[in-house]
Amino acid sequence: MIEAEISETVPFYDTDCGGVVSNIAYLRYVEKARTALFAGLGMPASEMMATGLFPAVVRTEIDYRSPARLGDEIRIVARLAAVEKVRAICEFRLTATAPGGEPRPVAAASQVVALIQLPEGRPRRMPPEWLNPTV
Amino acid sequence: MIEAEISETVPFYDTDCGGVVSNIAYLRYVEKARTALFAGLGMPASEMMATGLFPAVVRTEIDYRSPARLGDEIRIVARLAAVEKVRAICEFRLTATAPGGEPRPVAAASQVVALIQLPEGRPRRMPPEWLNPTV
Amino acid sequence: MIEAEISETVPFYDTDCGGVVSNIAYLRYVEKARTALFAGLGMPASEMMATGLFPAVVRTEIDYRSPARLGDEIRIVARLAAVEKVRAICEFRLTATAPGGEPRPVAAASQVVALIQLPEGRPRRMPPEWLNPTV
Amino acid sequence: MIEAEISETVPFYDTDCGGVVSNIAYLRYVEKARTALFAGLGMPASEMMATGLFPAVVRTEIDYRSPARLGDEIRIVARLAAVEKVRAICEFRLTATAPGGEPRPVAAASQVVALIQLPEGRPRRMPPEWLNPTV
Repeated sequence: MIEAEISETVPFYDTDCGGVVSNIAYLRYVEKARTALFAGLGMPASEMMATGLFPAVVRTEIDYRSPARLGDEIRIVARLAAVEKVRAICEFRLTATAPGGEPRPVAAASQVVALIQLPEGRPRRMPPEWLNPTV
Repeated sequence: MIEAEISETVPFYDTDCGGVVSNIAYLRYVEKARTALFAGLGMPASEMMATGLFPAVVRTEIDYRSPARLGDEIRIVARLAAVEKVRAICEFRLTATAPGGEPRPVAAASQVVALIQLPEGRPRRMPPEWLNPTV
Repeated sequence: MIEAEISETVPFYDTDCGGVVSNIAYLRYVEKARTALFAGLGMPASEMMATGLFPAVVRTEIDYRSPARLGDEIRIVARLAAVEKVRAICEFRLTATAPGGEPRPVAAASQVVALIQLPEGRPRRMPPEWLNPTV
Repeated sequence: MIEAEISETVPFYDTDCGGVVSNIAYLRYVEKARTALFAGLGMPASEMMATGLFPAVVRTEIDYRSPARLGDEIRIVARLAAVEKVRAICEFRLTATAPGGEPRPVAAASQVVALIQLPEGRPRRMPPEWLNPTV
């Protein structure tokens, strides 16, 4: 199973006036984890402008469990859950840890991702070696 | 049926290096439309810091249909689709129109929203007058 | 003198856990106002992907006077303050108005902008008709 | 001299349709570096919600030297340049490194920061031990 993991300390700009992390900010953490996942699959972001082959999010689902706060350490585990002909399903688990505290689940998300070849914008088949993600 | 509608011209900072609007940016449009919807229901954002009663997003689903681009006019229609004891379901339809062009659907989203009383963070019942959203 | 003016209601995602608008969010308002200013000068954002000619911010200065809050109406006035061979100076005044309140100054900014021709990334001369911005 | 250093890999959402990092995104890097700097001075972000003492940006200047791109590693060095009674000056140097490349300067910034005691919003004196930042 192919996984990637990143962590992020909650900055000011990810919080809102409710005192906790904005629902939108979690999608930024998810995007960083997805980018790390694709890098692990052989598609580093730093090469995408040259190849013109980009992952495009087709659908996002995210459930918010409990609030994360300024200064919490967010850990995001991404995994490639399924690969079909022209789309991949990525799943994400997010936990938050306050300094000196225990990790607690804060959100879970999944995204359907297609590969788009620019500049034409044509969908591309998933690489055959991804179809059996047990490598 | 209770609805709200807003529009937004796609700014630079909502696009990414794929040349189109970032998947995350659509959630900003959704948030503005949701805020307009709740204002129409009698909960304007400008009063929330005083009342301490905030809508909290519990779940988001969003499907991306086709890309929006820099300078497109985005129109977001939000409606209160269902109201239960402690949660409301909001639905969003997003269309984009290039100057001189026809509107095209770009995304559809739904969010489950709870009402949270700060500073305690306790969920509150939905206002009874929302339960029958045909007013 | 060439001016543009836009307004924006402060959304949740522009606030932070200090209870007021994030210092970074004001730059989003400035960017929208600058885009409106350049549209008024004949360079609408919607044509930039086709022409490849983009305004690039070379320097930003911003002074924060007093905090803006969730739900405030932000008004941003942008003006073309000076035009030189390869750069333009844009100035911005931001005021915030709470519902039922008086406008109060919240920030003032200036930006030095160059015109960059993509994909080469070469700076371009300012259009001669901008050099005398009294038109 | 008190310094902090962080690094960040440029994510999709920090780029724009010009193909490079958005001018606004650099301020997010600056904010993370400033937060690390204040943590090093004994004011970790994770304690601010409890103490109510927050650094507030009063002024920002940023010069953009050359573009950073998707996947570049950004390194931000922050230093406490000067401390006066009620304000501190922080300076930031940002470099970007493409995979396999050399670091190149991309931006330099400075910020004037005040300490604000919430909920009153009163400015506080800088801690006396910061006044001589050679510790």
